[in-house]
Amino acid sequence: MVTLYDYLDSGNGYKIRLLLAQLEKGYNWVELDILANETRTPGFLAKNPNGRIPALELADGTCLAESNAILWYLAEDSPFIPDDRLKRAQVLQWMFYEQYSHEPYVATPRFIVKHLPADSPRRAELPDRMARGRAALDVMEAHLRRHRFFVGETYSIADIALYAYTHVAHEAHFDLTPYVEVSAWIARVASQPRYVPLTQRPAAVTAA
Amino acid sequence: MVTLYDYLDSGNGYKIRLLLAQLEKGYNWVELDILANETRTPGFLAKNPNGRIPALELADGTCLAESNAILWYLAEDSPFIPDDRLKRAQVLQWMFYEQYSHEPYVATPRFIVKHLPADSPRRAELPDRMARGRAALDVMEAHLRRHRFFVGETYSIADIALYAYTHVAHEAHFDLTPYVEVSAWIARVASQPRYVPLTQRPAAVTAA
Repeated sequence: MVTLYDYLDSGNGYKIRLLLAQLEKGYNWVELDILANETRTPGFLAKNPNGRIPALELADGTCLAESNAILWYLAEDSPFIPDDRLKRAQVLQWMFYEQYSHEPYVATPRFIVKHLPADSPRRAELPDRMARGRAALDVMEAHLRRHRFFVGETYSIADIALYAYTHVAHEAHFDLTPYVEVSAWIARVASQPRYVPLTQRPAAVTAA
Repeated sequence: MVTLYDYLDSGNGYKIRLLLAQLEKGYNWVELDILANETRTPGFLAKNPNGRIPALELADGTCLAESNAILWYLAEDSPFIPDDRLKRAQVLQWMFYEQYSHEPYVATPRFIVKHLPADSPRRAELPDRMARGRAALDVMEAHLRRHRFFVGETYSIADIALYAYTHVAHEAHFDLTPYVEVSAWIARVASQPRYVPLTQRPAAVTAA
């Protein structure tokens, strides 16, 4: 059985929890407190030298990092990755978009707002990050005007990757009201079979 | 024949040029001046709504964005992506690492130093970005102490993705001297068959 190193409020970790639930695959779950630097201990750095969750430990002890690479590993040969070569590349296109153009500007503001003190100097980053976050949401809104899901009109790991932080963007005080198509897509993702919410603590929990 | 929209000094664009050369695949090459906002015209935004190069236009007019997704598309079923499921995910792990933890801190400082005016306010970003850039190089150095290439001891698109901005990091005034293993790996990549340098303008050039 695989072990997921994770932090409950992490959207990147949630991507893996959501896919594992939809694949009906059991797993051990180990929560690390990222605010207490539990991802920077020698023990965890031996698993992921980049010191970040999520990380997926396989039965043979190999540890895989980067949420979207873990999604790909778990979803190969499942309906959550298309068979067609171009569509596979488009899934990756949206996942790289998510990590480069979306996550730093939608997820990071949420982290600053939710988890750092009210007087944190990092709050100075919010105006620029949130402007770029709105630009990222604009690109999604335009795409969803013509498509039900991000690739090939079917739900895939590209949707999971983008959903993770988009559906909680309001926690960073993004106003999603003008994003009519994004909001409708959020509802479509949340109605997929075997959906689990971000706040749902996995059943099989191992103490860190 | 495919068309690559690109900018000669872009490491992200160079990734594609290097792989296409190594695959011995011909292509049209269209250079856009990113400093003159040629990637933000209505014509180009219709190709890539995120307004960035590189973008690869296929024979049927479909346009694929995100350098590492383009690498994956071109390299599927070639020796530049391993067959093994775990190794494929590890290739993606390093490519997501490159875009999230390396590119903003190694490539962006190079862009600021090389292409923005000496009094650009963005120079204030350099100390923080370069500290994170050195942390990214540290992770690479540690990995290369035990491996010749990033995945499976053979040259893959993970190496191409990481090489693109690492081998020109000195242009952002990173000192690579202490990075003995990274420097040796740079030489190994540069000695691969059909290698082309970043500065080599592709032969088949179409005016933008």
